[in-house]
Amino acid sequence: MPSLSDKARSMPSSPIRKLVPYAEKAKKDGKTVYHLNIGQPDIHTPQVVLDRLRNIERSVIEYSHSAGFDSYRAGLAEYYSGFNINIDAENIIVTTGGSEALIFGMQTCFNPGDEVIIPEPFYANYNGFATTTGVKVVPVTAKIEDGFALPPISQFKSLITDKTKGIVICNPGNPTGYLYSKEELETLREIVIEHDLFLFSDEVYREFCYDGAVPHSVLQLEGIEENTVVIDSVSKRYSMCGARVGALVTKNQEILDMALKFGQARLSPPTLGQIAGEAALNTPPSYFKEVIDEYVERRNLLIDELNKIPGVVCPKPKGAFYAIAKLPIDDSDAFCQWLLEEFDYENQTIMLAPASGFYSTPGCGIQEVRIAYVLNKTALLNAAKCLSKALELYPGRIKAESNEFTYSE
Amino acid sequence: MPSLSDKARSMPSSPIRKLVPYAEKAKKDGKTVYHLNIGQPDIHTPQVVLDRLRNIERSVIEYSHSAGFDSYRAGLAEYYSGFNINIDAENIIVTTGGSEALIFGMQTCFNPGDEVIIPEPFYANYNGFATTTGVKVVPVTAKIEDGFALPPISQFKSLITDKTKGIVICNPGNPTGYLYSKEELETLREIVIEHDLFLFSDEVYREFCYDGAVPHSVLQLEGIEENTVVIDSVSKRYSMCGARVGALVTKNQEILDMALKFGQARLSPPTLGQIAGEAALNTPPSYFKEVIDEYVERRNLLIDELNKIPGVVCPKPKGAFYAIAKLPIDDSDAFCQWLLEEFDYENQTIMLAPASGFYSTPGCGIQEVRIAYVLNKTALLNAAKCLSKALELYPGRIKAESNEFTYSE
Repeated sequence: MPSLSDKARSMPSSPIRKLVPYAEKAKKDGKTVYHLNIGQPDIHTPQVVLDRLRNIERSVIEYSHSAGFDSYRAGLAEYYSGFNINIDAENIIVTTGGSEALIFGMQTCFNPGDEVIIPEPFYANYNGFATTTGVKVVPVTAKIEDGFALPPISQFKSLITDKTKGIVICNPGNPTGYLYSKEELETLREIVIEHDLFLFSDEVYREFCYDGAVPHSVLQLEGIEENTVVIDSVSKRYSMCGARVGALVTKNQEILDMALKFGQARLSPPTLGQIAGEAALNTPPSYFKEVIDEYVERRNLLIDELNKIPGVVCPKPKGAFYAIAKLPIDDSDAFCQWLLEEFDYENQTIMLAPASGFYSTPGCGIQEVRIAYVLNKTALLNAAKCLSKALELYPGRIKAESNEFTYSE
Repeated sequence: MPSLSDKARSMPSSPIRKLVPYAEKAKKDGKTVYHLNIGQPDIHTPQVVLDRLRNIERSVIEYSHSAGFDSYRAGLAEYYSGFNINIDAENIIVTTGGSEALIFGMQTCFNPGDEVIIPEPFYANYNGFATTTGVKVVPVTAKIEDGFALPPISQFKSLITDKTKGIVICNPGNPTGYLYSKEELETLREIVIEHDLFLFSDEVYREFCYDGAVPHSVLQLEGIEENTVVIDSVSKRYSMCGARVGALVTKNQEILDMALKFGQARLSPPTLGQIAGEAALNTPPSYFKEVIDEYVERRNLLIDELNKIPGVVCPKPKGAFYAIAKLPIDDSDAFCQWLLEEFDYENQTIMLAPASGFYSTPGCGIQEVRIAYVLNKTALLNAAKCLSKALELYPGRIKAESNEFTYSE
């Protein structure tokens, strides 16, 4: 048999999904598995979406335009205007999830070998998309001790070479829940101008800002309109991850023209998902109020419970629905596998995402896990209890004292 | 602004979709445009699919497993067994359309710079996927004079270098409608074994074989099970192109393992499309009988009408729902644009796909167009009339005599 490609070999397994076979085995063995590994909320999809799907009138499920339904793009432009983001329908290419928007954007803007600076920990699949497109991720490390704030501008500047072509951020942040301040975004703007870089911003968690915080979009930054690319998605916003509908948004016409060629090759984004996405634009504000209240309660409960566990440190996220927790363990990959393979507490266990895959720097995150608070409060309490018990039993536990700091907000 | 990537610049525009802005303009100007450019059938999606969608019970539209619903994969395996193709559910990765299956397969099997032999004319977007993955397409030209039969094995062999890594075919063929015989596939099998190549076969038109012909799958070829990869899709089979659900099928476990990593990075194929795809497995045989009868009637009508036009030559396709026609024109790109921009017959015109984009050899196909017979017979008759009138008026018409052959089946 011929050998496979180098890219296939170097493609990372997703830390979010690579342990799925162990979880399937645990479930077959009768264990309840709390899935905190993946941002798959149990929150209901808005009723307007479900009603729309149940009343599909089409007799042919056709391709759409490669850039998406005109009517949906117009509706999205209006959605952005609600966030004081000035975007036309023509600035939007509807994609198959945020994933495809990232692939299209990276393929369009970066050559293989180009360097892209990404604050780590970052959404693990950025590593996969970088491998797919041959881009070199240059991490700048945000630290748990600093609550994952953007590292100082000097650190960014020290990483810039003649191969640096862009910066990628996620705001509100997956996996840290960090929310960039307006000042931090202004700082990035200056670097972008000084070094003529692209600034990609993954803003799929826009609605999920807590404690009165408001989200800022890079599309609002003046003077870098040609440099900014926003990645968006309906997945989390409307709890319809399976719709696979996202968007690439930019005012840079050349990027749109080129990205559309990749879009034409794959014909169109999903028609049924777009029908759902367009219906979702009519989601009432009360839906978001309820959902955000629920996430805040879940966050408060989970973060409190986690920080009560000896040796566990978990900054309180300001947005999205993830947290990175540092655990008193030797290796989170081993620990997360052990949780599924070896451990149970009253026939329950938890699936977590080892954080090493959310870093690019080797060795980073080996004591950390990403936790998605996407389950109801009872499940979260049970999961926290499981984690507490597991840390008592885990053979690779290290002394809590070796965690050299404790986090206080 | 920073410069865009080389890949973005070299990415071809889809010949199927690049003229869309001209078609939109023509329609705005009040013209009726017959869309023969794209394989978007007007055939109804099976009722079982529409009924299923109208009865979705889910309250959360969740991600699926990255390889697709287990139940759908099992159903697909059963579907293949109906064609005497012996496949397990585990041999299938559900993808976002056949497009994604091709991308995953090519990324997994081929390095940038690897050479892949493809009989041309081929589905135009293979050029796009080759650009995306950095693969070099090495065409072997099938000729209209031969009814687009597979070129002699000697021609394949003469193209093989130490960089040759695979062969890609489409069977039944888009854009030619050619159906490979068992003997032709056996010939390919020998080349694959002798040179240890991958054999990709795009079999999305499996059901559409006419005049009593039966389709043969490369999955039935013995001794090259580790080398064969089938690309499949529900798009054409059930006239639901917008579902964006396809499949990568192979018995090669290593390919499956590696391709799944690309699959995990993009999380999951569309959930709503998979619901539709799973429902479609219950499509009654009567549906296919009706649809195939309809396509045969359309084909017979269209091909007859085309060959009646002076200077037009169009072999009769044996499968799929496309034909390549040679026209007495200087340049099909210019002609197809002229049809939309300059021409109308009783306020009607046609959109065709220039065939140059379906070839890799420069200069090939410049007198040819791809025509999809996906519209009803009245529309096809009107479209043929338009073409006939257009060829009388087109300034770049060349003398029919310069077509150096006439085709007879």
